[in-house]
Amino acid sequence: MPISLERMIHFVPPNIEKMRAKVPDLVNKVDVVLGNLEDAIPADAKSDARNGFIQLARENEFGSTGLWTRVNCLNSPWFLDDVMEIVQTVGDKLDVVMLPKVEGAWDIHYLDQLLAQLEAKGGLGKPILIHAILETAEGVKNVEQIAAASPRMHGMSLGPADLAASRGMKTTRVGGGHPDYAVLSDSDNSGVRTAFQQDLWHYTVGKMVDACLSYGLKPFYGPFGDFSDPQACESQFRNAFLMGCLGAWSLHPSQIEIAKKVFSPDPAEVAFARKILDAMPDGTGAVMIDGKMQDDATWKQAKVIVDLAQLVSSKDKELAEVYGF
Amino acid sequence: MPISLERMIHFVPPNIEKMRAKVPDLVNKVDVVLGNLEDAIPADAKSDARNGFIQLARENEFGSTGLWTRVNCLNSPWFLDDVMEIVQTVGDKLDVVMLPKVEGAWDIHYLDQLLAQLEAKGGLGKPILIHAILETAEGVKNVEQIAAASPRMHGMSLGPADLAASRGMKTTRVGGGHPDYAVLSDSDNSGVRTAFQQDLWHYTVGKMVDACLSYGLKPFYGPFGDFSDPQACESQFRNAFLMGCLGAWSLHPSQIEIAKKVFSPDPAEVAFARKILDAMPDGTGAVMIDGKMQDDATWKQAKVIVDLAQLVSSKDKELAEVYGF
Amino acid sequence: MPISLERMIHFVPPNIEKMRAKVPDLVNKVDVVLGNLEDAIPADAKSDARNGFIQLARENEFGSTGLWTRVNCLNSPWFLDDVMEIVQTVGDKLDVVMLPKVEGAWDIHYLDQLLAQLEAKGGLGKPILIHAILETAEGVKNVEQIAAASPRMHGMSLGPADLAASRGMKTTRVGGGHPDYAVLSDSDNSGVRTAFQQDLWHYTVGKMVDACLSYGLKPFYGPFGDFSDPQACESQFRNAFLMGCLGAWSLHPSQIEIAKKVFSPDPAEVAFARKILDAMPDGTGAVMIDGKMQDDATWKQAKVIVDLAQLVSSKDKELAEVYGF
Amino acid sequence: MPISLERMIHFVPPNIEKMRAKVPDLVNKVDVVLGNLEDAIPADAKSDARNGFIQLARENEFGSTGLWTRVNCLNSPWFLDDVMEIVQTVGDKLDVVMLPKVEGAWDIHYLDQLLAQLEAKGGLGKPILIHAILETAEGVKNVEQIAAASPRMHGMSLGPADLAASRGMKTTRVGGGHPDYAVLSDSDNSGVRTAFQQDLWHYTVGKMVDACLSYGLKPFYGPFGDFSDPQACESQFRNAFLMGCLGAWSLHPSQIEIAKKVFSPDPAEVAFARKILDAMPDGTGAVMIDGKMQDDATWKQAKVIVDLAQLVSSKDKELAEVYGF
Amino acid sequence: MPISLERMIHFVPPNIEKMRAKVPDLVNKVDVVLGNLEDAIPADAKSDARNGFIQLARENEFGSTGLWTRVNCLNSPWFLDDVMEIVQTVGDKLDVVMLPKVEGAWDIHYLDQLLAQLEAKGGLGKPILIHAILETAEGVKNVEQIAAASPRMHGMSLGPADLAASRGMKTTRVGGGHPDYAVLSDSDNSGVRTAFQQDLWHYTVGKMVDACLSYGLKPFYGPFGDFSDPQACESQFRNAFLMGCLGAWSLHPSQIEIAKKVFSPDPAEVAFARKILDAMPDGTGAVMIDGKMQDDATWKQAKVIVDLAQLVSSKDKELAEVYGF
Amino acid sequence: MPISLERMIHFVPPNIEKMRAKVPDLVNKVDVVLGNLEDAIPADAKSDARNGFIQLARENEFGSTGLWTRVNCLNSPWFLDDVMEIVQTVGDKLDVVMLPKVEGAWDIHYLDQLLAQLEAKGGLGKPILIHAILETAEGVKNVEQIAAASPRMHGMSLGPADLAASRGMKTTRVGGGHPDYAVLSDSDNSGVRTAFQQDLWHYTVGKMVDACLSYGLKPFYGPFGDFSDPQACESQFRNAFLMGCLGAWSLHPSQIEIAKKVFSPDPAEVAFARKILDAMPDGTGAVMIDGKMQDDATWKQAKVIVDLAQLVSSKDKELAEVYGF
Repeated sequence: MPISLERMIHFVPPNIEKMRAKVPDLVNKVDVVLGNLEDAIPADAKSDARNGFIQLARENEFGSTGLWTRVNCLNSPWFLDDVMEIVQTVGDKLDVVMLPKVEGAWDIHYLDQLLAQLEAKGGLGKPILIHAILETAEGVKNVEQIAAASPRMHGMSLGPADLAASRGMKTTRVGGGHPDYAVLSDSDNSGVRTAFQQDLWHYTVGKMVDACLSYGLKPFYGPFGDFSDPQACESQFRNAFLMGCLGAWSLHPSQIEIAKKVFSPDPAEVAFARKILDAMPDGTGAVMIDGKMQDDATWKQAKVIVDLAQLVSSKDKELAEVYGF
Repeated sequence: MPISLERMIHFVPPNIEKMRAKVPDLVNKVDVVLGNLEDAIPADAKSDARNGFIQLARENEFGSTGLWTRVNCLNSPWFLDDVMEIVQTVGDKLDVVMLPKVEGAWDIHYLDQLLAQLEAKGGLGKPILIHAILETAEGVKNVEQIAAASPRMHGMSLGPADLAASRGMKTTRVGGGHPDYAVLSDSDNSGVRTAFQQDLWHYTVGKMVDACLSYGLKPFYGPFGDFSDPQACESQFRNAFLMGCLGAWSLHPSQIEIAKKVFSPDPAEVAFARKILDAMPDGTGAVMIDGKMQDDATWKQAKVIVDLAQLVSSKDKELAEVYGF
Repeated sequence: MPISLERMIHFVPPNIEKMRAKVPDLVNKVDVVLGNLEDAIPADAKSDARNGFIQLARENEFGSTGLWTRVNCLNSPWFLDDVMEIVQTVGDKLDVVMLPKVEGAWDIHYLDQLLAQLEAKGGLGKPILIHAILETAEGVKNVEQIAAASPRMHGMSLGPADLAASRGMKTTRVGGGHPDYAVLSDSDNSGVRTAFQQDLWHYTVGKMVDACLSYGLKPFYGPFGDFSDPQACESQFRNAFLMGCLGAWSLHPSQIEIAKKVFSPDPAEVAFARKILDAMPDGTGAVMIDGKMQDDATWKQAKVIVDLAQLVSSKDKELAEVYGF
Repeated sequence: MPISLERMIHFVPPNIEKMRAKVPDLVNKVDVVLGNLEDAIPADAKSDARNGFIQLARENEFGSTGLWTRVNCLNSPWFLDDVMEIVQTVGDKLDVVMLPKVEGAWDIHYLDQLLAQLEAKGGLGKPILIHAILETAEGVKNVEQIAAASPRMHGMSLGPADLAASRGMKTTRVGGGHPDYAVLSDSDNSGVRTAFQQDLWHYTVGKMVDACLSYGLKPFYGPFGDFSDPQACESQFRNAFLMGCLGAWSLHPSQIEIAKKVFSPDPAEVAFARKILDAMPDGTGAVMIDGKMQDDATWKQAKVIVDLAQLVSSKDKELAEVYGF
Repeated sequence: MPISLERMIHFVPPNIEKMRAKVPDLVNKVDVVLGNLEDAIPADAKSDARNGFIQLARENEFGSTGLWTRVNCLNSPWFLDDVMEIVQTVGDKLDVVMLPKVEGAWDIHYLDQLLAQLEAKGGLGKPILIHAILETAEGVKNVEQIAAASPRMHGMSLGPADLAASRGMKTTRVGGGHPDYAVLSDSDNSGVRTAFQQDLWHYTVGKMVDACLSYGLKPFYGPFGDFSDPQACESQFRNAFLMGCLGAWSLHPSQIEIAKKVFSPDPAEVAFARKILDAMPDGTGAVMIDGKMQDDATWKQAKVIVDLAQLVSSKDKELAEVYGF
Repeated sequence: MPISLERMIHFVPPNIEKMRAKVPDLVNKVDVVLGNLEDAIPADAKSDARNGFIQLARENEFGSTGLWTRVNCLNSPWFLDDVMEIVQTVGDKLDVVMLPKVEGAWDIHYLDQLLAQLEAKGGLGKPILIHAILETAEGVKNVEQIAAASPRMHGMSLGPADLAASRGMKTTRVGGGHPDYAVLSDSDNSGVRTAFQQDLWHYTVGKMVDACLSYGLKPFYGPFGDFSDPQACESQFRNAFLMGCLGAWSLHPSQIEIAKKVFSPDPAEVAFARKILDAMPDGTGAVMIDGKMQDDATWKQAKVIVDLAQLVSSKDKELAEVYGF
């Protein structure tokens, strides 16, 4: 598995020429460019989107920026053409296929074999990876089998909109909180009760992260639907980051910078983490730093942050300077 | 599986004549009438309760209102008589048997076979369904196997009191929050720390909902014990509704209206959801509504809400008008 | 499985003579004395720690206070000597081996067999138990198999620092909350948005508790790293207590009293619980107490609290008086 | 599990008065008397058979001879009455319920719970055991789960007639060989080819024996249908004995002696086995006896035979003398 | 699953024009015509074979005779084209795809999805079924999962040649016995020892039959390689028939009649079986026929044979007369 | 996994000096020298055997001949010392540890970890492999999990004596047939019935071979106990060879030559197999050789034999000549 920086997976509708025209610029701004063929692409634009993606892939050089596509789901009439045409034309440039609505290991088995056969036919030297969207109740139930289904698995994204529909959650928001999910406190001394809002996605993100990390995969948060609320978007992204996610989707240009900010570790945290590593050169023993005990375990926590900062620095010169690498 | 409106499962102690006398009235007020034989019925009233339920079932017509019973648990001395006598006398009127303290698939296998044999003997044409109460640590661990154990499964209810005891949770409350479950914030600029109360049931409800929806079953929240606190009851019910539950238990008449209010979707949400459906007639593509992007996935979220509103409307004429159906 | 009071597992670095000297005093203050050989013990002090533990075990009488050791992890160069030397010298005094970084049932199978063989060789009459630390993503995924892996299993502790590193959680704190994990509310009438902080550990503790209780094991919270923040420590411990844990680790003397306070039930709760038990002598039926309905299920919740109070009373005479036992 | 001698399970049709009259005599001749309610009892005699069995059980004393019944299968209209009426009337005298057509663990779960509840109601002190008939393709597939399904499992019998039908084997024989199942040799020097007949049941018996012994259960061969061919019956029984079975069914009085002869070990084998045990008093090392090497492993093989001879001797004084016990 | 007579699956090499020319004639002689694209077709004739099959399918009407194809295996460069071109051109005429070298459920998942997508694209109304060849050690290990992998599963064939190679069996024969697999008897009275030849395939056929019948699939024996030995071929086919198989492959025209003879039940057996059915009109009770006891179980054995005879009669008028239908 | 020739695993009792003295000679005669510490070694000679093995390992050079030990079983008082002392002294010369009485994957997990830790301590560069003896009913039931339990698995041997005892098979023979396991034919025209002896081990060997080959392990037959019957020994070995085994144990010098003869392929078979390979250079297509059809599948069967002949030739110059390599 190549180690790549994937703070935001930026969605492009490849059926729209104006959007394809922005790709050369995007390549320098985002970590991953994804040509979206599925949800949000109207039924009558599906083949334009597929052809647009092939064109987009051919006409651009991506360097260290990832090139992904989200294909239509397995029980749609478009899936087979999506995969076959794209792999047979631009398979050598494609890094990852994002597969929506994955229900169980059998869905991965299918795409895995199909890619294997198309790669063999096309003489492709590098395996195309699979990224699953976790967006049905059954998918969440089977997340560990999905993670284990193929060595081709890259990671997973939580898809909160489809998942909400599949579970019968009564919300029309896409990600983020809902004011009605709250615990009501007892009355305080002055008789006031507070409704403490809760995170709708805690269990789902936690289970997905454990499944991913158990098999060496990368967990991601997916879309945040309300483009007019950058603060809530940032808050949702940050929660995912805290719990172990490595990136999120950007559906709107304004979300690129939010993702970049959230998924690049905080310089102060990085500085503190480096202090820990410096104080314990061999990673064993115990030291007190700023009044908090550090030992072999916190050394590993610090290493997670410093490693990520180094990966960010390799791509982002500005941040490299801020971090001091 | 018949599609029924089951916003509240109303508990009646059938050993008490006065309560049985209210049933004709109840049938028009609630979605489900449940004759309770288990917890809250004293040991020396168990056979009165069983006989009372049979009488209650015989003497009333239920129309589209469900008739359920909660039998005593499998390792009690009453279970076998509960099931045999009730199915052999009023099996043709009984919709669902609620089975408490389900630990694993084996418990469902037992009731499933017993019902099959009694139905065959009694020449019953319609299968009696099973509703499991999730109220032990082992039951939560095995929730997916329980959901898959029989095509006779109707759904599940979370039973917070028994579950708290089984897990060793240190609370005597029945459902709702507990002031001691809170995350303490860091000090803010003025040195103040806030204790943010948390939802004790998030993980459990989430896991139950995924298991239910994976097998086409219906998830419910169970009892709320403090009858004197309708606000906390409403808050607890609403959390369940948000996370995917379709109803809750009403143990006290005052909780009927709470359940009705919570488990019927909010008219404003319904109106917004209808806008989404109207804007995307074939369910594909992307549109902006009130500044939020909608696509195939949010279309499905909207459909969950509109479908529920229609189901509610089929029973509740007042709400039908409010929703505009 | 012996029933023991284990509100705090107190960590002692046995390589340090000064710390060993405090053990006779500790035995009267804590419920469990643990000689730590793993994280926080520098590589070059590992054999001193092992020898120090053997000396400490030999030189003290522990009475009803538990004697545990935390050995180095299975893929370290110290594990085999840790177990063999300790069991062969002071196996008759050792109650529990705490095994770090358990990934799956296979790790327990190994220690189980090794202990069996050393016990047989040494003619030990009482089986040494195993306590697993849950501190990797894979361990959390496999927690049910770990719980079921051997009749020698005593329980589990959540290890938040290693677990955070294993999951890629972006925090350098050891347990407790993180200010960045919060749900941002919608604007209220005055346009104010609140960030409601969330519990990072809810899913993990919930899953661990269910796995433990399904197999009759004891769940524990592990370390709280910031010794200078007793309030946050208490808050973290209390969350675990509420969700079903029976104790926590004390890494610093100041945490002993915090654990004692949290993991001994509140006298007011105990008094209320006794009222319930008194009102329902055979545990069936329904009564109203202080406006809240009590039945067979809340009777069990009350019993959890009263049983714990009785266990505490057997060791702590002061509290026995407070509880009125 | 009590250790009993069960060389033959003798089938009695309890609906026939003349057959019931023979039971007092049978008790001294056979190891197990089984009242058959299932196959071979006509539909219109089912309740006579059930009542006849109850009468038979009441009117006789069975001493060390087992009393079993074979009830009708789970999807028949008679099963529930069979079990309920028999356990509620003569449950204290009944040792084992033989359950036909077991498909999976779920079938055992059902009978297990039903017996538990009837035992509890009837205040029976000794658990009634379950003996499963392995007679469907699915049952053979699931034999290990069936064996593990309950601590109440006594053992299993291979039912070759139903199993042949379930598998689509093209034979109308009940047990034994079939002339068409044979391997044709190559031509020998004189051009002759031999058809070597094969054992139709090798795989099935082998798999059943492994499943049984893995869970401490007893394997049996079932019926041999051709009463006019005692030699083939003896051959079939002996094959089962060799492969690990402890007894077989006798459907005709003439088969009682065949079973007794086959399932009591051969005196010469017993004498040889005792030589081995005598030569290796502690069961370790190696000796040569009659030119064959004996070691710890053959000591165990010898013990199997000597233990069985001793069990036979405890019931059969004649054989005891022959064996020299 | 349609009920079809499939006594022989006749292999045709569709790359050879002369063989294609015989198909119109074959359709009346065999139960299934299979166009073979895999083993025995040279690498440089693969696309000729595929095109030949399409032509053969187009140019003939098959009536009640099955049309199957054996495609190349999943890790070959030909599989994808085989399936796509054939289903897209003659999918409406194709009954079954035979898939070689199936290792586990994942292989079936793949073909299942691919067929589903191609059927949807082509608007095919009738699902194309899958027949798996069991011919690797791993396939035999996983046979139950393979059987359960899809509702599209038709059945399985044992492939003895590849299986022998996969297991490292030291034989170059294709099916049938091997003179070296024999049990050597003890010396008889005259000092003679006999080598009793054994069936190499007993375990494999038994396990495959149980897996198939557990999931409602049809088991088949595959090829017999020595065309010059019709007797051994008949013996091999008959063993499979006895153990539950419904047909075999014919690789040479001479094997068609052998299969027809073996897999049509023996008229004498049919006559005897009809006697049993006639004697027990409701299938319960016990009767003696020709000295052998018959009961509900043998009634089912008889029914297997009579049902098969009726199916044969529906296609083969000559045999219908012999059977007397 | 190194590719080694292991036609016979020759057992040496290392406690007997005279036997150790023969090792230098043995190294040239056998493929594997195994120092036996378990069955056949008396309890009071266990530590002599262990020390003798260490001495034997130190004093000899083994070249391409394997050096194995069979340690005492896991629940014996000797296992731990066997493994620790041997690996710590002569671990660098030891190829394989043979583990007796393996019941499930957990037993392999234990030895696997113990070897890992001892190898790490001793700085051993080459992993010591594990060979499991399959000799209990539970082991046979779990054979697939055992095969999959560790990458350190070398293979398995069938242990017929212990297995017979574990299953309750009524035989005191070690391997080979038993005259009582036979199918009795119907009478022929002259009224003669033949008892066709059957293979007691067919199912067990078949299941073991499939499990081994599914995971890339090597299957072996174990001991043949009657040293005075070389013909029966050869017959037993040959059956194992036919079914896929690669070697057997030699417990007596006379069995070395038997194993060599059986497990080296027959020169005539090798010659025929080479014809097949020569006729199909690329392994595809179909040819007739000596009247038998050959295709891609028989090509693989032929390759199994030719590959083995080449491996034999690399060690045995005489056979190399016979084979013509």
